[in-house]
Amino acid sequence: MTIGVVGGGQLGRMLALAGIPLGQKFLFLDRSTDTPAGQIAPSLVGEFTDQKLLRALAARSEVLTFDWENVSLAGLRALGRATRIAPPLAALAMSQDRIAEKRLFTKLAIPTTRHLAVDSVPSLVRALRTVGLPGVLKTRRLGYDGKGQAVVRTIEEAWHGFEKLRGVPLIYEEFVPFDFEVSIIGARSRSGEIAIYPLNRNLHRDGILRLTRAPFGPAALQRRAAHHLRRVLEHFRYEGVLNVEFFVRRGKLIANETAPRVHNSGHWTIEGAATSQFENHLRAILGLPLGATTARGHAAMINLIGTLPARPLVLATPEAHWHDYGKEERPGRKVGHVTVLADSAQRRDAAARKLLRAIDPVALRAL
Amino acid sequence: MTIGVVGGGQLGRMLALAGIPLGQKFLFLDRSTDTPAGQIAPSLVGEFTDQKLLRALAARSEVLTFDWENVSLAGLRALGRATRIAPPLAALAMSQDRIAEKRLFTKLAIPTTRHLAVDSVPSLVRALRTVGLPGVLKTRRLGYDGKGQAVVRTIEEAWHGFEKLRGVPLIYEEFVPFDFEVSIIGARSRSGEIAIYPLNRNLHRDGILRLTRAPFGPAALQRRAAHHLRRVLEHFRYEGVLNVEFFVRRGKLIANETAPRVHNSGHWTIEGAATSQFENHLRAILGLPLGATTARGHAAMINLIGTLPARPLVLATPEAHWHDYGKEERPGRKVGHVTVLADSAQRRDAAARKLLRAIDPVALRAL
Repeated sequence: MTIGVVGGGQLGRMLALAGIPLGQKFLFLDRSTDTPAGQIAPSLVGEFTDQKLLRALAARSEVLTFDWENVSLAGLRALGRATRIAPPLAALAMSQDRIAEKRLFTKLAIPTTRHLAVDSVPSLVRALRTVGLPGVLKTRRLGYDGKGQAVVRTIEEAWHGFEKLRGVPLIYEEFVPFDFEVSIIGARSRSGEIAIYPLNRNLHRDGILRLTRAPFGPAALQRRAAHHLRRVLEHFRYEGVLNVEFFVRRGKLIANETAPRVHNSGHWTIEGAATSQFENHLRAILGLPLGATTARGHAAMINLIGTLPARPLVLATPEAHWHDYGKEERPGRKVGHVTVLADSAQRRDAAARKLLRAIDPVALRAL
Repeated sequence: MTIGVVGGGQLGRMLALAGIPLGQKFLFLDRSTDTPAGQIAPSLVGEFTDQKLLRALAARSEVLTFDWENVSLAGLRALGRATRIAPPLAALAMSQDRIAEKRLFTKLAIPTTRHLAVDSVPSLVRALRTVGLPGVLKTRRLGYDGKGQAVVRTIEEAWHGFEKLRGVPLIYEEFVPFDFEVSIIGARSRSGEIAIYPLNRNLHRDGILRLTRAPFGPAALQRRAAHHLRRVLEHFRYEGVLNVEFFVRRGKLIANETAPRVHNSGHWTIEGAATSQFENHLRAILGLPLGATTARGHAAMINLIGTLPARPLVLATPEAHWHDYGKEERPGRKVGHVTVLADSAQRRDAAARKLLRAIDPVALRAL
């Protein structure tokens, strides 16, 4: 069976590595063949909006999925009933629009930030008055890894942010002085089965995820996050893996955003969970029984940003696992990750600290 | 860095799946492109003895390795210093000749079976007289998965076996009425570092491995097997993964054979050990630090012989992992394996029994 994947980045690469043992074949669509996924499976080369290519991909695949959420919704919608697409396009549409996302959170009784849409000076003024300062001005669409955002502490910063981002629909949100960030990943299969992973505790710097540690307690937080995630999965009669990110303030969860796909904060599941998020995404869209999502020990996932450190340096830690995405090194680019496993959270953190000292002193200081 | 692999079977496929996250590229040599490994990495197509192809493989690879032990030793030797080959050819030569293998066991004080070389009627008579009945007549070379063997309980069976196998050098060995079989896998890296996995308990039927369970105690057996394995690794200043199989009778180890490569009885290490045998083979031949070999829970690996069962049937066990080799189904052929993990040996065996009932009633009866 061939799985068509729109996008051939590292998420596609790890999907293929998980799917090959399941007996799957893969066909990717991306702008070049020398993508992380294209190095291990065939690719169609062109724009994500190219209707002819999308149709060719659909014709050669039993099911279509995507490895990032900024793929062309219109392009996929135009395929109509030509192919089965999973996750559902309604979930993709929601995740592409921050206002729709917040509206859904509210509808499903999931606490989220106060916010207003901004598309003009009067609406900005209204937003500043209603939501107050400080806040964050963001593009409604196509934001990821901290791109398309401006933190607003003063009226002046609001005007600067508006000048920088205007021209596209925006959202103004309250700034949440959170204690820390978590995310939760779950899968829902075609049959309705749901499996949810332990909570991830995430550390971002400059909008980019640097470090995830899992499983993260306490149990009450896990239960509440899983409850929220389950509501989103059931709302869409979802197929595949979905991630929800939350701020945590004074023990309360405040939903920030969703990703209708495998997620960077779930990379630790490759070694750290009974079944990886990549395998469960595939099982879910193929209608196979889901694999166990229990943690196996305590994992820390460190993103490798810009450059890869020396392999022997990292692998000298016997429980470290290396993930090279096959990408050219470039500042700010995710080129790989390292996962370290231990049998206690304390030992995991000690090992992570030792690695961060060598790899990412910025994240180390924040830990 | 490109790793050249002579042979593109399932072992090569699993090497590539382990090596891609390490940032490695692979080039295989096999008789067709549609091999298990050829489906995920480029292949040179031709005979294993083809000097021109071997030289092309060497020219395009930083290091050459092999995924089975019946590759052409002469072909690899002829490459001379054109390339680095790991594991060392001396170990490959030993494993290709049952007499050389037993000679080494004896030299290294590793208990093995009584045996004599047989290449004529007089030598057969001498072997029957010295070793006694019952025994096993085997080809000295190119035997695997029970091929090229005849069990000898009577003088008549000795003649029949000799008639069937004659024309090539043979070995006559005592028949060991063993209580069970074990194997042990270890890696030695270029730097001399050694890492040894927990003992595997193996179940064969008709000469083909059907079931491996690991880790297998008791500690004294593990210690002794590891000691023997270490002696072989050090003898060759070995680079890569090596497997030694033993019969166990009344608590004593009797060495049967070696495989200078990743081994079927180590497939459980993909999910069941901190680092898989495939990753450690690559780390060893690349001179990288070896990964931890500790077991993570209790694993049972069930070979899928001839046909693949229905995937949903197997994956309904939440801790089961599916490995499809991408091969055409054919009687007696290894087409995949399933690994099941549990947090105790009892639960692992219960899960394995449940799966065997559906997949392999023959192995179930022997369990």
